[in-house]
Amino acid sequence: MINAAVYDAHGNPAEVLQMRTQPWPICAPDEVIVAVRAAPINPADLNQIEGKYPIRSSLPATPGFEGAGVVVETGSEVRHVSTSAHVILPHNLGTWREACAVKATELVVVPSEIDLVQAAMLKINPLTAWRLLHDYVKLKAGDWIIQNAANSAAGRAVIQIAQELGIKTVNVVRREELVEELRVQGGDAVLIDGEALRDDVKESTGGAPIRLGLNAVGGDSALRLMNCLAPSGTLVTYGAMSLQPLKVPNGLLIFKDLRFRGIWINKWYNNASQAERIETFNRIFDMAKRGLLHTKVEKAYPLNEAKTAVVHAARGKRDGKIIFEFGD
Amino acid sequence: MINAAVYDAHGNPAEVLQMRTQPWPICAPDEVIVAVRAAPINPADLNQIEGKYPIRSSLPATPGFEGAGVVVETGSEVRHVSTSAHVILPHNLGTWREACAVKATELVVVPSEIDLVQAAMLKINPLTAWRLLHDYVKLKAGDWIIQNAANSAAGRAVIQIAQELGIKTVNVVRREELVEELRVQGGDAVLIDGEALRDDVKESTGGAPIRLGLNAVGGDSALRLMNCLAPSGTLVTYGAMSLQPLKVPNGLLIFKDLRFRGIWINKWYNNASQAERIETFNRIFDMAKRGLLHTKVEKAYPLNEAKTAVVHAARGKRDGKIIFEFGD
Repeated sequence: MINAAVYDAHGNPAEVLQMRTQPWPICAPDEVIVAVRAAPINPADLNQIEGKYPIRSSLPATPGFEGAGVVVETGSEVRHVSTSAHVILPHNLGTWREACAVKATELVVVPSEIDLVQAAMLKINPLTAWRLLHDYVKLKAGDWIIQNAANSAAGRAVIQIAQELGIKTVNVVRREELVEELRVQGGDAVLIDGEALRDDVKESTGGAPIRLGLNAVGGDSALRLMNCLAPSGTLVTYGAMSLQPLKVPNGLLIFKDLRFRGIWINKWYNNASQAERIETFNRIFDMAKRGLLHTKVEKAYPLNEAKTAVVHAARGKRDGKIIFEFGD
Repeated sequence: MINAAVYDAHGNPAEVLQMRTQPWPICAPDEVIVAVRAAPINPADLNQIEGKYPIRSSLPATPGFEGAGVVVETGSEVRHVSTSAHVILPHNLGTWREACAVKATELVVVPSEIDLVQAAMLKINPLTAWRLLHDYVKLKAGDWIIQNAANSAAGRAVIQIAQELGIKTVNVVRREELVEELRVQGGDAVLIDGEALRDDVKESTGGAPIRLGLNAVGGDSALRLMNCLAPSGTLVTYGAMSLQPLKVPNGLLIFKDLRFRGIWINKWYNNASQAERIETFNRIFDMAKRGLLHTKVEKAYPLNEAKTAVVHAARGKRDGKIIFEFGD
């Protein structure tokens, strides 16, 4: 038997989440059984439990878009994954459970040098950061980009991947105490959000054109980013921490020719071929092996403390991710 | 001597516009002199006089982004344009004057079958409509698009050009009495804007995906268009009649992958080669020769009634353009 977090109805995660025991999963010929070792709590997980995510799961459901584990059984037709391999799980299984059956072709094998807790957090944020820097504006070394929410896990991944690519970053944060920390992380400019942003940015970049903005906040913060972009620049939205819609002055569309896009990494993942996924993961693994793209963990919980963990994860001010860790 | 409308300071057009006499223009070797025959009053002209246009002219200035006339003198080096040719003027001269000197290479020669009053209104609206239908989403015959402000000059041009290309149009208007009129013009579906729009559109199109939306209103009307677009669809803004910014719910960017762009036809015109301009104009002239792309004129004024004319043009409810006509 295994333990799994389950909800029977959408609602407040702390209220609707329950622990259930389930039978050990059955392994089809093309599947493997993965013993889950780590699974983070992402905002999207909480939204899904609340019923606010665009794709609703059939209920009862187990949450968890991310996770990593160890292969403990392989189906008779499985060739390219063997037991004891470390793997990243796909996002449609529900990772908040001790074990699951997965099609072998859906797994990404992780190099053994990478800690499984860190591996469990490579699929959403670093992958989002990688695609944000590759799929919207053709950038070359020396170009500048700007992002808000620079202290988020995705924001920190953007800083490090940009540095890897020779792209310079203007990082916008709300708290003064983050400035030094993000500079050390590799941020070329770290600025406090506010009315003076546009001037501060100009001073930091020497007026260099910024053709890509990355927005995870929305509302006024997004508007301030727009005003820092060069004509024909692109603002890509991947989050909405302020819960405010984008307000786009018509002149920025008509006269400044700004372009507005969004990214949903799970959709990218679904549409990509396994070869494309692995190509991106290889670059990310290469950085992770060198100690980069390390995600801070504020606290790890055992799965049976799921209610406490989701309350903790929902708190605004944290200093790292909340994650489930499972014993061997 | 010639008469010209001039303003010395930005402000209310009815107050700041004055009539001045100016010397007959001097023709440089690469220039021609055009006797202006017709020049419409566009919203952008009023904005420019008010100082609300993104490019300010050096003052004193003569307004007028559009106009057509007859070549009456040619410079010694001019080869491919001859006197008595009908021409469309470029947008950076100020057309609200009886005559002007223009570089011959900046002129577009109009087939003589096309009335000069109509020719004077082909550069902004039909050209905008043409580019809207060609530069943002790859459309093929049978595809649907949706637009608001369908009764505007640009909106009517969109209907006719789309029909020419075999593209089907959903046309959104505010007044019931326009429905029949725009159907006759070629609109495949003509619907009243409002909360039921999304359902009405589905019924009209049989649920066909709409990948391009054209927005000249902004605010809530633009939001209703967004909700009618298919996933990964594009909304292009070319006007802002409501004076309200676009409000873009984050989910439409992140989960629905909608894309937002804008067009400024004067910028397109500046960036295009003369060959590209003429290629588009030839298609537009071809339609105009068949009586299509006819712009309704509510009233023609002589230039010395410019103050009255701009007041008339600023009225919300009109049944056609206000235009200046000049005697032979």
